[in-house]
Amino acid sequence: MTQDPLPLWRPGPTKDLILDFVGRVTDPGGADFLAPAERIATFDNDGTLWCEQPLQVQFFFAHGRLEEMARQDPGLKERQPYKAFLEHDMKAIAAAGKKGFFEVAAATHAGMTEDEFDQHAREWLASTRHPTLGRPFTDLIYRPQVQLLGYLRDNGFRTFVVSGGGIDLIRAFAEEHYGVPRNQVVGSSVRTRFEETAAGWGLTKLAELNSFDDREVKPQNINLHIGRRPVLAFGNSDGDLAMLRYALSGSGPRLALLLHHDDAEREFAYDRDFKVSPLAEALDHAAEYGVHVVSMRQAWATVFDPVA
Amino acid sequence: MTQDPLPLWRPGPTKDLILDFVGRVTDPGGADFLAPAERIATFDNDGTLWCEQPLQVQFFFAHGRLEEMARQDPGLKERQPYKAFLEHDMKAIAAAGKKGFFEVAAATHAGMTEDEFDQHAREWLASTRHPTLGRPFTDLIYRPQVQLLGYLRDNGFRTFVVSGGGIDLIRAFAEEHYGVPRNQVVGSSVRTRFEETAAGWGLTKLAELNSFDDREVKPQNINLHIGRRPVLAFGNSDGDLAMLRYALSGSGPRLALLLHHDDAEREFAYDRDFKVSPLAEALDHAAEYGVHVVSMRQAWATVFDPVA
Repeated sequence: MTQDPLPLWRPGPTKDLILDFVGRVTDPGGADFLAPAERIATFDNDGTLWCEQPLQVQFFFAHGRLEEMARQDPGLKERQPYKAFLEHDMKAIAAAGKKGFFEVAAATHAGMTEDEFDQHAREWLASTRHPTLGRPFTDLIYRPQVQLLGYLRDNGFRTFVVSGGGIDLIRAFAEEHYGVPRNQVVGSSVRTRFEETAAGWGLTKLAELNSFDDREVKPQNINLHIGRRPVLAFGNSDGDLAMLRYALSGSGPRLALLLHHDDAEREFAYDRDFKVSPLAEALDHAAEYGVHVVSMRQAWATVFDPVA
Repeated sequence: MTQDPLPLWRPGPTKDLILDFVGRVTDPGGADFLAPAERIATFDNDGTLWCEQPLQVQFFFAHGRLEEMARQDPGLKERQPYKAFLEHDMKAIAAAGKKGFFEVAAATHAGMTEDEFDQHAREWLASTRHPTLGRPFTDLIYRPQVQLLGYLRDNGFRTFVVSGGGIDLIRAFAEEHYGVPRNQVVGSSVRTRFEETAAGWGLTKLAELNSFDDREVKPQNINLHIGRRPVLAFGNSDGDLAMLRYALSGSGPRLALLLHHDDAEREFAYDRDFKVSPLAEALDHAAEYGVHVVSMRQAWATVFDPVA
């Protein structure tokens, strides 16, 4: 008997589906064989690859910088949407949604060069802890998913992150923690200006939104960045539904997975009540759309790395 | 003595520079060593990887379809910029520039799904011949450059095409002819609409420009798609100068190459006279900017594959 390639995945329907799918697309003699170039897998990030509770990491990332800005410009505390963020006004934050997050994050990082932003993001990730779980955010990456990404790559897949979060924040840790190179990260982005500074020619971030990578924009950006329809897609919210249905609409073998956070003991339990990024339509219509719902509680042998 | 990895490149300063650069960045004990993830090489397409005379391939690609459209809607023949294209009015075409090309091309392919476009592009490339050289356009790919792309990849580089031409036209042949996967092609693009058709959920091309990937937009799109500053960049016109200077502005080892078409015998001789995509500033300031000019006549042992 060969070794189990996914020991962090418990025996059950999800593991069976994944192993069967990968077996079929890599069997050179089988009807479902796919050339390696066709083996494109796309994963959402927030809530699919790492924890997004009580709010997406993007929020905490922008928040620290916003507080710094408010110390220099106290008027910011009275202006929306900054006021809501500075006061942790959850109702206003939920109303602004993930796009509202990203717009605040964009505004707080305007004026940074790409190199300054990358350094800032790395320092922030290394120095900041999750407000209730008390661990660095990169400790709150789901281990079974990292194992799945590696298993897919071992089988000739190219793995991509396709996130509503900021593309450059994810790039600051994706290579090291997911094994996903920077050019295989797709996410929300701001416009940049090409200009000469003391360091030479480079790009400076502007406050202007370039792309908010959620819902129908995910397939649009997959088309722009990847240029090929994924055969496997993994998400966890209604914001991923367009990507999942896009993956399922191609010909040949297809697999669309939807992580259901039903594990209050080891992580969190939420779906339609999480106003910032709800899971409702995707859950209600999963069977009809051909999407397989993954129960975190059932499917994963572990969630996070044990505390060192 | 080891085998020459670039037999299609003649002995001389360009070949020395390339071999020396690759040797330095791959020498684990050397001061200029770069981890493979840092070995990003970007190549312009038109005039750098394949022939762009008498006009970029994009023009001929759009032209066939425009003629078809004009048969169905004769009024098109009287409307600019279509009139100039249909009449091969070179003065008006030059005035519209490469961006004008791309806008016409965009308009002619609006309404196609991504799969329809890919099939159309493949059929067109397989069935159409260069107007004066009489060969398929993919026969007019520069063999020394294909060898260089392979040599870089053999040395751990990731190779990207960064073109002002349409991203999806290049994707239709880049994998087979350049060894560059679809997700490593950056180019001009149109907006798309995500919609459900008889074939399921997919993307339909709109006539609206998303990005015209030329001049300062090249570094902006490199940042968006690749997320890392290239260490080697290769271009052939003023439209590539921003990309070359961007590559050169990073720290550590850098190489920027500029192909000079000075080979009327085997290809074409042109630079500042080619109004659609001139080479003037880059040629005049190459030494000052640190860009190495590559003489096609001197550097290449051959240009195209011999006629079969």
